[in-house]
Amino acid sequence: MTTPLGPRVVVLSGGVGGARFLRGVREELRRRFPDGAIGTTAKLTAIVNTGDDMWLAGLRITPDLDSIMYTLAGANDEQRGWGRVGETERVAAELAEYGVGWPWFTLGDLDLGTHIARSSMLREGLTLTQATARIAERWSIDTALLPVTDDEVETYVSTNDGPDLHFQEWWTRYRAKVDATAFVQRGVAESRPAPGVEAAISSADVILIAPSNPVVSIGTVLGIPGIREALSAARAPIVGVSPIIGGSVVRGMADACLTAIGVETSARAVAEHYGTRRGGGLLDGWLVDDVDAAAAAPLTTLGITTEAVPLWMTDLDSSAALACAALDLAARLRP
Amino acid sequence: MTTPLGPRVVVLSGGVGGARFLRGVREELRRRFPDGAIGTTAKLTAIVNTGDDMWLAGLRITPDLDSIMYTLAGANDEQRGWGRVGETERVAAELAEYGVGWPWFTLGDLDLGTHIARSSMLREGLTLTQATARIAERWSIDTALLPVTDDEVETYVSTNDGPDLHFQEWWTRYRAKVDATAFVQRGVAESRPAPGVEAAISSADVILIAPSNPVVSIGTVLGIPGIREALSAARAPIVGVSPIIGGSVVRGMADACLTAIGVETSARAVAEHYGTRRGGGLLDGWLVDDVDAAAAAPLTTLGITTEAVPLWMTDLDSSAALACAALDLAARLRP
Repeated sequence: MTTPLGPRVVVLSGGVGGARFLRGVREELRRRFPDGAIGTTAKLTAIVNTGDDMWLAGLRITPDLDSIMYTLAGANDEQRGWGRVGETERVAAELAEYGVGWPWFTLGDLDLGTHIARSSMLREGLTLTQATARIAERWSIDTALLPVTDDEVETYVSTNDGPDLHFQEWWTRYRAKVDATAFVQRGVAESRPAPGVEAAISSADVILIAPSNPVVSIGTVLGIPGIREALSAARAPIVGVSPIIGGSVVRGMADACLTAIGVETSARAVAEHYGTRRGGGLLDGWLVDDVDAAAAAPLTTLGITTEAVPLWMTDLDSSAALACAALDLAARLRP
Repeated sequence: MTTPLGPRVVVLSGGVGGARFLRGVREELRRRFPDGAIGTTAKLTAIVNTGDDMWLAGLRITPDLDSIMYTLAGANDEQRGWGRVGETERVAAELAEYGVGWPWFTLGDLDLGTHIARSSMLREGLTLTQATARIAERWSIDTALLPVTDDEVETYVSTNDGPDLHFQEWWTRYRAKVDATAFVQRGVAESRPAPGVEAAISSADVILIAPSNPVVSIGTVLGIPGIREALSAARAPIVGVSPIIGGSVVRGMADACLTAIGVETSARAVAEHYGTRRGGGLLDGWLVDDVDAAAAAPLTTLGITTEAVPLWMTDLDSSAALACAALDLAARLRP
């Protein structure tokens, strides 16, 4: 059963897992609001991690924004789990012949179209926010895609050996197998939230935290100066969805990131890491999987209203059901 | 029968026609010199027009350099006459969806690999000469490819209507059907020959002018300050090959360019336009097609030793035979 809620939903998100969650949220909003209302009376805004972004072969790559855009557009590769469906790599093979780019980082042909378009717009003077909006126009995704910042704040990974690695190198090349000792957001001190980000947060009726990597996706979003303050001041309830089910990550290698910062890989530990809002942290509410119900129960006592629901997003319906649970919890938590 | 000649051959060249001629010159040199000598004891250098170059979608496109490189590499599309064999346009279709680029300008996927590699190198601080050399390393073309200048001197076309058009727009989009009144090399006054260009000219044993567009290919090369002086001072004989056969252009739309500058579309008129070297012009010798033998005969009296040979380069052998004729004529003209 649905509960009334305001029409402005903001989701803090990383890439693939966040994309799947956002698709569920959009579906749930479409069910709750009449046809065509999403994007007009109702509004879904994704505030997206940009710490994985990079310049590669002269092109600006924004993996999380693209994962979300492709997924919401229905253009993503469901089988592979990332990138465009029907992708090929003809250009990448040429680049490899010329020794340009990173051989371990896939640049699909269709995806390159997006990268070239974005890079061209950035070089014409558009901000990342503007370029993202223009690129997203093609897809009619009914979702405002906002990079958390227009500044280039890329995540680097400190290890016990050698210079810091770009996050993508650590993640994609080394599959997070090199022990990380810290994650550094280069240039973060001088960065600002992108235009519209703080306003979206302050005017939101509901704020959701996608089940994304708590350290290098959500953590990176939270690291941009002003974001924590905006969330703290927001009138909307903030409900997070655990990226951990039964002590394992749902996707990706978040456990390696959590371990690096000394946080246990559990639904409860992640919530404690985010913190309770009344204690200066992030969360009013927290959704864990049924298997974590017992272990996470004490969180409610700590001030994070925690509910157990099925977290696996295996298809659109299960994603929408999860979104429904998050929205319902938020509605009950409304001040 | 071949005549001895020095091993250093320089060819001034435009794109597709020049590429075919260069392939013939290389083949002829391979026949005259032992295996492996080209690139070591013998040297073939192409000094290439860069007036057609442009930035498009944030990528540096150098059509003439690429046409030559692909042709010498055997990677060109013989059927279509330009670009890479086995080319596809998946990325271009994406760019079109995003409204990026020029819809009338083809960007093949394989070709884009070259453009991205080049642009990346330029942005890392390499000159066009350096980037061209690095890119050409892949192909083992036994030919030094030298852009005539590292400066961005792009050709614009004045018409009776509206602002000047970039050469590519006039040529590719309007197929040279809009009457041109002038060709303008933007930035030419501040430009310089690329490193190695003047040295290649001064140390050459033979200098050949490819049957390229006399106005916007060879003319553009000649327009870079210092090139005419270097050619004038060169000790090598200079032999040109007519791009006009029987009053028609061999390929392309050079007639529209010649008409714009008031030159008749004939083998004789082009030679007169280049001028006789002893009169301060370019040519010591000139090859015309057999069909133009009679009309061009008076050129010899004017100081341009003119010979008639078959000019059609239908295959490697006919291209090599033409190159052989050009080299033989040059040998006889050696001071």
